[in-house]
Amino acid sequence: MEPVRILGLDPGLRHTGWGIIEIKGNCLSHVAHGVVDTPSDLELAQRLTHLYKGLSEIISAYTPDEAAVEETFVNKNPTSTLKLGMARGVVLLAPSALRVSVFEYSANKVKKSVVGVGHADKEQVLMMVKMLLPVLNSTIMRADAADALAVAICHSHHRQIHSLTRALKAGQL
Amino acid sequence: MEPVRILGLDPGLRHTGWGIIEIKGNCLSHVAHGVVDTPSDLELAQRLTHLYKGLSEIISAYTPDEAAVEETFVNKNPTSTLKLGMARGVVLLAPSALRVSVFEYSANKVKKSVVGVGHADKEQVLMMVKMLLPVLNSTIMRADAADALAVAICHSHHRQIHSLTRALKAGQL
Repeated sequence: MEPVRILGLDPGLRHTGWGIIEIKGNCLSHVAHGVVDTPSDLELAQRLTHLYKGLSEIISAYTPDEAAVEETFVNKNPTSTLKLGMARGVVLLAPSALRVSVFEYSANKVKKSVVGVGHADKEQVLMMVKMLLPVLNSTIMRADAADALAVAICHSHHRQIHSLTRALKAGQL
Repeated sequence: MEPVRILGLDPGLRHTGWGIIEIKGNCLSHVAHGVVDTPSDLELAQRLTHLYKGLSEIISAYTPDEAAVEETFVNKNPTSTLKLGMARGVVLLAPSALRVSVFEYSANKVKKSVVGVGHADKEQVLMMVKMLLPVLNSTIMRADAADALAVAICHSHHRQIHSLTRALKAGQL
């Protein structure tokens, strides 16, 4: 069975976490992770460009087969929601423009997949990600990157359902 | 004096209006306009890709020197605001990724520039755009494209102030 690479993404205008995992049969393994930070002294359009180019480079370097993005929390503050929306638009675009299929998961679904409950805190997610992808135990990992790896893990749990649904829709089953 | 080409953009996930004008001394002229419509049956990431590729093609074809984008109206409905934000992120990114400087103007500023008052309706904007860029009198123009041309006209009025401010900041004056 060919290994499948998943790119997980946790969007934010300041910090977008990313993480790549590989699935081979029932085994998950860590490939890489990091955070794209956008310099806050740049103008908005330039920050979005910085984010887009950063993600495009990561996608070109690691050639993931599929991407999974955490659904954005809709804030009560409309200005924050608008900013999050802009970052999210660019984060969805980057893989899609390079022909990588994008899947979306709510934060609750991601937490349930990784920690077992929907209302886990950042620390629990970080700890579980490190346990599920053991190579990382010793490395220092930022919460944004851990969240991105958690989205990738969540997608690895759900992707079989997705492929079945698509095959059903296409009349192949 | 070299003519300067301005791309005006009115962002929306369904319909993004665009318009190109040329400034030569004190004269404005119409170059082109249109609307990028994204098919609503596509998934979100694919719609954003459609929008991004459409705008990138327009920018490559008409090589504008500067771009101007209407600031997004922050909706009371957070889900709509998030969608607008995503489209807006892609609309700001497209020129910036191709090294075209992007400027932003509030809807009020745009209307004041074109109609003279901040609370003009769509019909008034459309009528004034057709008057200011007379070649268009006879063509059928969608409101989104007229709004985009209005942003470009607004930028043509403000760009001298922008260049002065930048020169001052750079210590050239």
